[in-house]
Amino acid sequence: MAKWLEDDEIEEDIVISTRVRIARNLDRFKFPQIMNDSESDQLTNIILNRLKENEDNYKFFKVKDLDEKQRVSFVENHLISPQLLKSSNHGSFLIREDERVSIMINEEDHIRLQALLPGLNMEKGWDICSTIDDFIEEDINYAFDEKFGYLTSCPTNVGTGLRISVMLHLPAISMTGHLKNLGESLRKLGLTIRGTYGEGSKGLGSLYQISNQTTLGQSEQEILFKLDKIVKQVINREKGTRNFLENNRRIFLEDRILRSYGIIKNNRQISTEEAMNHLSNIKLGIDMNIVEKIKSKDITNLMIIIQPANIQVDSNKEMDRKTINIERSKLIRDYFKQWEE
Amino acid sequence: MAKWLEDDEIEEDIVISTRVRIARNLDRFKFPQIMNDSESDQLTNIILNRLKENEDNYKFFKVKDLDEKQRVSFVENHLISPQLLKSSNHGSFLIREDERVSIMINEEDHIRLQALLPGLNMEKGWDICSTIDDFIEEDINYAFDEKFGYLTSCPTNVGTGLRISVMLHLPAISMTGHLKNLGESLRKLGLTIRGTYGEGSKGLGSLYQISNQTTLGQSEQEILFKLDKIVKQVINREKGTRNFLENNRRIFLEDRILRSYGIIKNNRQISTEEAMNHLSNIKLGIDMNIVEKIKSKDITNLMIIIQPANIQVDSNKEMDRKTINIERSKLIRDYFKQWEE
Repeated sequence: MAKWLEDDEIEEDIVISTRVRIARNLDRFKFPQIMNDSESDQLTNIILNRLKENEDNYKFFKVKDLDEKQRVSFVENHLISPQLLKSSNHGSFLIREDERVSIMINEEDHIRLQALLPGLNMEKGWDICSTIDDFIEEDINYAFDEKFGYLTSCPTNVGTGLRISVMLHLPAISMTGHLKNLGESLRKLGLTIRGTYGEGSKGLGSLYQISNQTTLGQSEQEILFKLDKIVKQVINREKGTRNFLENNRRIFLEDRILRSYGIIKNNRQISTEEAMNHLSNIKLGIDMNIVEKIKSKDITNLMIIIQPANIQVDSNKEMDRKTINIERSKLIRDYFKQWEE
Repeated sequence: MAKWLEDDEIEEDIVISTRVRIARNLDRFKFPQIMNDSESDQLTNIILNRLKENEDNYKFFKVKDLDEKQRVSFVENHLISPQLLKSSNHGSFLIREDERVSIMINEEDHIRLQALLPGLNMEKGWDICSTIDDFIEEDINYAFDEKFGYLTSCPTNVGTGLRISVMLHLPAISMTGHLKNLGESLRKLGLTIRGTYGEGSKGLGSLYQISNQTTLGQSEQEILFKLDKIVKQVINREKGTRNFLENNRRIFLEDRILRSYGIIKNNRQISTEEAMNHLSNIKLGIDMNIVEKIKSKDITNLMIIIQPANIQVDSNKEMDRKTINIERSKLIRDYFKQWEE
């Protein structure tokens, strides 16, 4: 199981995970885009030295020391951003032992600190970030402006530097074609909803991420409060649509879910896209008591470990796409065997 | 199980069934297309009276006494032709107790006598037809011309009036796109290959029917010999293609077959077309030892009983298409339970 997912106290209920991240930059250092190697080394050392004094244990990785499949695997596990891989020369990151905290160095900003938690957990995520942020700030001077707040390399992050992203599983809204409406409503409220390939795109496995768009002119607490309220509305809408389907289109729903179950348990080669869709249907089936014995969180975990780089890291081999599809099929079928009598 | 399929001595090996039929007309009667009610009654009685003297037991049905689902069900069971249903006023038929012999009255000709046997069985089919034909002819005068042979309402049947049709399961040839070539080769040899909706069409469940096109200028034995030889060539081609797939595209094949198995066992509504395709894949899987425990002939039987009219006759209800699809799904899943441990 992905480490950050492990938490039996936190129940998944449509919300898969909450990510809270803050963007920070050190005073008197150039932004990452324009610094040279020695400036980057100096900056990285300052941050590392400060974090050595923290009681938590972190593992440190330099992007340039990792091979391609390892790099992408960290992204697939939601531990680092795809953006960090673009700064392969200066980029590095720290992962806390429980994998719930990542600190990226020289991504778009000097520091991108994120807390990743299962379920809907904004307050806790913010507490974690805020505590580590304070610890760093005790010893390090951030670029901060009285009027604008924290300064960042891209103006969209100026202010609190805070972005909260909630990952939701929205199969019913997605199935009934109500996603476009939802996107428009959210945009008016200053939020975005993204599928797998950014705003407006369809989410693989019906997974969608809702985040705040503005970081300026609002306090952290205001951002949290507003997002929490709206996410709960979206959850209710998804639940309402599920009820509608259950009451009016029961056979369609069962058929769709159980076909996915039959395919997932029997295929011999499967792409990420197809597997994500079937797993999404099965996850919906678990939530609606159409599929029994399986836990929703195990499907979430499966959605992570079947990603292409994870499969290659797992078997420590570079593979072509066809081989990955065959391995993915085996992995999923083996995983499902735990629920067979 | 469809009665005519029951025969443990006859093994299915790509060939599902052999149908031998002869067209006969009574001397001094108008052809069915232009006769009136009393002529039709008279003709029907002559034939019925003759057959009463036969030692075999027949059930007699008038098309006009049957409702729509009953009519179509006889067609789906391959016991009568769709053409007979068009002559709903004058058409009638006799079915022998074992359902291997049908005698249609006033289809396109006065008499259409068919023997239907599982597997490749032309000689036996011809023997059955020939014996009954001789029995009828002892007492009834057929329209016969020394030069042309038996006279029929459509010139394509003049001569022997004999048409032999062999139903083959050709999933590998069909999958690899070699069907068009095969059709062209057969046409040059005076044979036709038909899918579900006639010549050139795709066969539902990869079922194709090969028959002789000419009935004139060849003896019955010549027709039999030629068709037998060519059908065996087609069988070899299908087997060769299966071997090719097994050796070169094993994963593709297993994936396709086992997905069908997963879908068939889990869906909650399914159309005839889709079910036929999955059953065809499963049948191929049985023949190639990819699917275990199930007998190939049971799948053939399933391919018959899931047809829409059969489902309605079985539950003695008229149903809309959606309901039929739901019933079909249940029927198939129940049927598959016999193979579960």
